[in-house]
Amino acid sequence: MAAKKNIVFIARSLDGYIAGKAGELDWLELVPNPTGDDLGYAALMAEVDAIVMGRHTFETVWGFGGEWPYTKPVFVLSHSLQSLPPDLAEKVQLLSGTPAAVLAQVHARAYHRLYIDGGRTIQAFLREDLIDELRITTIPILLGGGFPLFGDLPQALVWEHLHSTSYLGQLVQNHYRRRRDKPDRA
Amino acid sequence: MAAKKNIVFIARSLDGYIAGKAGELDWLELVPNPTGDDLGYAALMAEVDAIVMGRHTFETVWGFGGEWPYTKPVFVLSHSLQSLPPDLAEKVQLLSGTPAAVLAQVHARAYHRLYIDGGRTIQAFLREDLIDELRITTIPILLGGGFPLFGDLPQALVWEHLHSTSYLGQLVQNHYRRRRDKPDRA
Repeated sequence: MAAKKNIVFIARSLDGYIAGKAGELDWLELVPNPTGDDLGYAALMAEVDAIVMGRHTFETVWGFGGEWPYTKPVFVLSHSLQSLPPDLAEKVQLLSGTPAAVLAQVHARAYHRLYIDGGRTIQAFLREDLIDELRITTIPILLGGGFPLFGDLPQALVWEHLHSTSYLGQLVQNHYRRRRDKPDRA
Repeated sequence: MAAKKNIVFIARSLDGYIAGKAGELDWLELVPNPTGDDLGYAALMAEVDAIVMGRHTFETVWGFGGEWPYTKPVFVLSHSLQSLPPDLAEKVQLLSGTPAAVLAQVHARAYHRLYIDGGRTIQAFLREDLIDELRITTIPILLGGGFPLFGDLPQALVWEHLHSTSYLGQLVQNHYRRRRDKPDRA
């Protein structure tokens, strides 16, 4: 059985926001990407078995229209959604519960390497120390407000820096792995 | 006359804090530094003419005891402090006023390349778009709360990424220069 792993892969502004004050996402395209560099996305998708995302992220992606972008099974976390668009019946499943309960359900279906997406979902998983790897791309803009990637935590969490990659000359992507081998206070 | 430049050089946690919930700074020493690497500090000090810092930062540095660490003139911003310790009379000067007014006073004394330090001071200067360069070292810890490096801004500010440097195998330092040549919205 593959080792379990929960990976976050997300872009944030230099001041730590994943969406602007009014939900704006246009700044994600600040840096021209003429060759369509995928910023490590294909490598991530090759590594994971499934995607776990919050309802808000699901609705944002679905709202873009066009083809459904994911080739792996998607689990959408929601207490309020009762059903999904019929087109997605074979691609998306609804789940609810605590992060630990959600993981138990996903693991029971034999998906172990997971891409965890969406601000609220990431924050909920981090509060229970359920994220193993962070892949964070920093966009060189101070938004000055918005929805932050990270939220309050009951305790500090120490990470190991794995590597930094520069994309498009302007984006910096850092990979961190959770360190559970040492105390979380310095 | 040297070109004017205001530089921020500071460490923050992965979630963007410069001090913990109770003002803790111990996490800044999370990564062992057996060789006493200065993380770019000497290079910074060689580049600047003077240091501008907030009262809180001044009191923190002064509170550490030991020798006064700065070899360049220090300007402390405070509306409340009336006087400084006599030992520092020739090294430190008190100033007050808006960031623009403070800069006018410092420039009038022929100091043009400035290291701007302290969370509130940095935030006040950024609100008036008076920072030209950011040198930010990221410590691989999520504190989960504390005093944030960046605060609210009246408008987004776009930066140019200059370079990334890795220190001690675990710290990432990114240098950004303010881009005033293009619109601040993507």
